[in-house]
Parts: sequence; structure tokens; C-alpha cells
Amino acid sequence: MTIKLIGFHAAVPTLRVITTLNELGVPFEFSPIKDREDFKSNKFFVDKNPFGKVPILIDDGYIIYESRAISRYLVTKYQGKYNDNILIPDDIQKVATIDQHISIEGFYYDTPISTIIFQEIYRKKIDGTGPDPEVIKNEREKLAKTLNSYEKILEGQKYLTGNDVTLADILHYPATVYIISKGYGDLWESRPNVKRWVEDLSKREVLKEIKNRLVT
Amino acid sequence: MTIKLIGFHAAVPTLRVITTLNELGVPFEFSPIKDREDFKSNKFFVDKNPFGKVPILIDDGYIIYESRAISRYLVTKYQGKYNDNILIPDDIQKVATIDQHISIEGFYYDTPISTIIFQEIYRKKIDGTGPDPEVIKNEREKLAKTLNSYEKILEGQKYLTGNDVTLADILHYPATVYIISKGYGDLWESRPNVKRWVEDLSKREVLKEIKNRLVT
Ligand SMILES: N[C@@H](CCC(=O)N[C@@H](CS)C(=O)NCC(=O)O)C(=O)O
Ligand SMILES: N[C@@H](CCC(=O)N[C@@H](CS)C(=O)NCC(=O)O)C(=O)O
Repeated sequence: MTIKLIGFHAAVPTLRVITTLNELGVPFEFSPIKDREDFKSNKFFVDKNPFGKVPILIDDGYIIYESRAISRYLVTKYQGKYNDNILIPDDIQKVATIDQHISIEGFYYDTPISTIIFQEIYRKKIDGTGPDPEVIKNEREKLAKTLNSYEKILEGQKYLTGNDVTLADILHYPATVYIISKGYGDLWESRPNVKRWVEDLSKREVLKEIKNRLVT
Repeated sequence: MTIKLIGFHAAVPTLRVITTLNELGVPFEFSPIKDREDFKSNKFFVDKNPFGKVPILIDDGYIIYESRAISRYLVTKYQGKYNDNILIPDDIQKVATIDQHISIEGFYYDTPISTIIFQEIYRKKIDGTGPDPEVIKNEREKLAKTLNSYEKILEGQKYLTGNDVTLADILHYPATVYIISKGYGDLWESRPNVKRWVEDLSKREVLKEIKNRLVT
């Protein structure tokens, strides 16, 4: 059995999958994509994912893409096989609440964050124009609104679905660390519950490694 | 046991859940929200969903939001209880491929469609300005790109994950019918596989009802 992960070395979607693999203790082989041009021109990836995106995971011939779907697959298949971490417990309603928070993460948390990251990193590095202040302002507002809702959910409980960490929480980690490192930490600092939530996640050994990969 | 669904009468996210309920034959009580102002001012909903969105499903006291997570919950809990329809088969890799396509639907199919619908419907009805041609052009391009990938996937197979319909396919239905009815049908017509796919879905009894709700 070999698990192969194709992705970008320090990009959030790829790191979501690496986070899950590491939390479950699943051994894998990482094939990093060296640069964007290499990627765009490479029919190899498009054969595996018609949407032309990474990460792509190949598990003994079975190909799957979309970071959150990959992570959920890994939990279903490998949870309990390499260590005792439980990322999705065996309870229909708990599973559904985890799915709900993964959906919220994708649409209302990661979307403004990845737009800001694109502005901060790529518009600076790639086209040299720098971030568009209008876009930053709008996305910061969306993110603040989302964090207000997280603040309510995290009132009186440690993690998004209760007092135990689950896949829903850990999938938030790479984007959170990345954007905080780019000067947006005040959004978390000013909300005691989300602040504590990120601090608690940051104590996990596996997530320390993710942080080192991102913040260079 | 009572299942209660709170949502907008003819909005795509609510109809995604109604589609799933109907495909599974699950009886439910629908509490439609009458108007947007009513909704915004109503603390009732925000208590149930801190993100202030509908649909919200209440299953014997258990509250869940996010249309795709609700649908997946319904399948896990009620598939096979009221009829023989199988929307998610019992196979780890098949389940993962369904999750993958639900993720693609959310990020790359529904996102451009709902932006176009917002432009076509709400900007006309609500603020009277009409659709922004620049936005329509960009989102139409994104959607066409997504449909090119669907066209490849649907080459040689009837549905997104193989020859049987699954939850991944039916969740696409409300947005697809809606936008085709607004004059965007050429995007499907010009691609034989996606055209056939929508035609096949349109033959399902349950989906005929969804179509009637949307296209008035
Ligand atoms: N929804 C996808 C997002 C993946 C994604 O955006 N990947 C980027 C790299 S970080 C990519 O492949 N971009 C290439 C492209 O969009 O053409 C996931 O969660 O896996
Ligand atoms: N991701 C959500 C989207 C739900 C959604 O956007 N619902 C709209 C009505 S169709 C809503 O509640 N809008 C109110 C708002 O955004 O404040 C889902 O799939 O359930």
C-alpha cells in the first residue's frame, strides 16, 4: 500500500490534507509541484483531476481530489489504524455537525482568507501590483462576520462541535496560521473564544509542523 | 419523529434539501420564510444558525444547517427507510468520490451559478439596477470552464461517479434548472455529455416537482 500526495509544498489546500494525514499517523509519499508554470503545462495532473487543481491523493491506484473530501476519505479509511486519534466519532449527528462545520469552513472562513492571501502574496510576488485595498476591506469584513459566529459557537465549548477536537477544527488550521502570520491576527486576538480555540489547536504536535511549513 | 425544514420557498439551497428529502421519501414539514426582511429581523433563525442562513433542518430536536451537510445527514440516517433509492452506496471509495463531486459542485458549479442568479434576479427585482455585464461575463466563463471538466467526466458514464445516480448528481439539479430557465441553456446544449446528464436527471419524478417549484 502506498499513498501518494501531489500538491504545492506550502499551499493551504495541500496542507489541509497533510494535516489530516499527520493527525492520523498515515505514512505517505509527497510529490511537490515545483512551480506554477510546470503545473499548468503538465497534462499529467489534468488526467488525474479534470478541474486541474491540487492536492490530488492516490491511494493504491484510487485517485481523489478536493482537500476536504480527501481528508474525510482518509479518516473513514485510516482512523484508528496507525494511532488512537479520533477525528470523526461514530455517531450520526456528530458526523453531520462535523460536515456542517466543514461546509462553513469552505464557504465562509476559507473563502475570504484565501482571497486575502491571494491579494497579499500573489499580487505582490507575481504581478507586482500589491493588494487591492477595496478587496481587502470587503474580505476582512466577511471574515470578521464569520468570526463573530464562531465566537458564539465557541462560547462554553472548546471546539467547534463540542469539547473534543475533530476533523472540522483541524481543517481550519493551515489557513488560520497563514493569515495570522500575514498581519491579520487582531481578528482572532479580539475575540476571546476564537483566540483560545486557535491557541488550543496550536499546542498539537502535528500542527506545529504545519506551522513551520507555512511561516517561513 | 418530526422533521421540520426552515427555508425559502423557491431558493436553490432550500431546494437542494427538498430534493434529497423527496428522493429518500422522507416526510417533512416545511416552514417557509415569507420575506427577506422578516428573515433578517428574526432572532429565531439566528438562534438556530449563528451564520444567519437557511435552510435549517430540525430532526426531533437536532438542528443542522448547510444544505449539503443536511442532505448527507438525511441519506446516512434515512436511506432505505422509506423507499429503495440509494443515493450513497456502502463503499468507502464510492462515498469519497461522491464527497469529491459535492465539493466541486459547491465551489466550481454552484458559485458561478448563484452569482449569475443573484445578478439576474435580485439586482433586477431588488435594487432595480439589472445585471452587471462584466460580472456576468466572468462568471459565465468560470461556469463554462467547469462544464468542460464535467463534459470529460461524463464521457462514457451516465452520472458523475459512474452509471448510477447518486447524491452528487441530484444536488446539482435545482441550480441547473434555475439557471437554464434564465437563458443560460446554451452552456449545456453545446456539450453533449452534460446535456444528456441533465436530460436524464430531468426524467426523475421527484425532480419534476423541483422544476415546477423553481420555474414559475
Ligand atoms: N477546492 C480545492 C482547492 C484547490 C486549489 O485551489 N488548489 C490550487 C493550489 S493551492 C490549484 O490547484 N490551483 C491551480 C488552478 O486553480 O489552476 C481543494 O480544496 O482542494
Ligand atoms: N451554504 C449555504 C447557503 C445558504 C444560503 O445562502 N441561503 C440564503 C438563502 S437562499 C440565505 O440564508 N441568505 C441569507 C443571508 O445570507 O443573510 C447552504 O448551502 O445551505
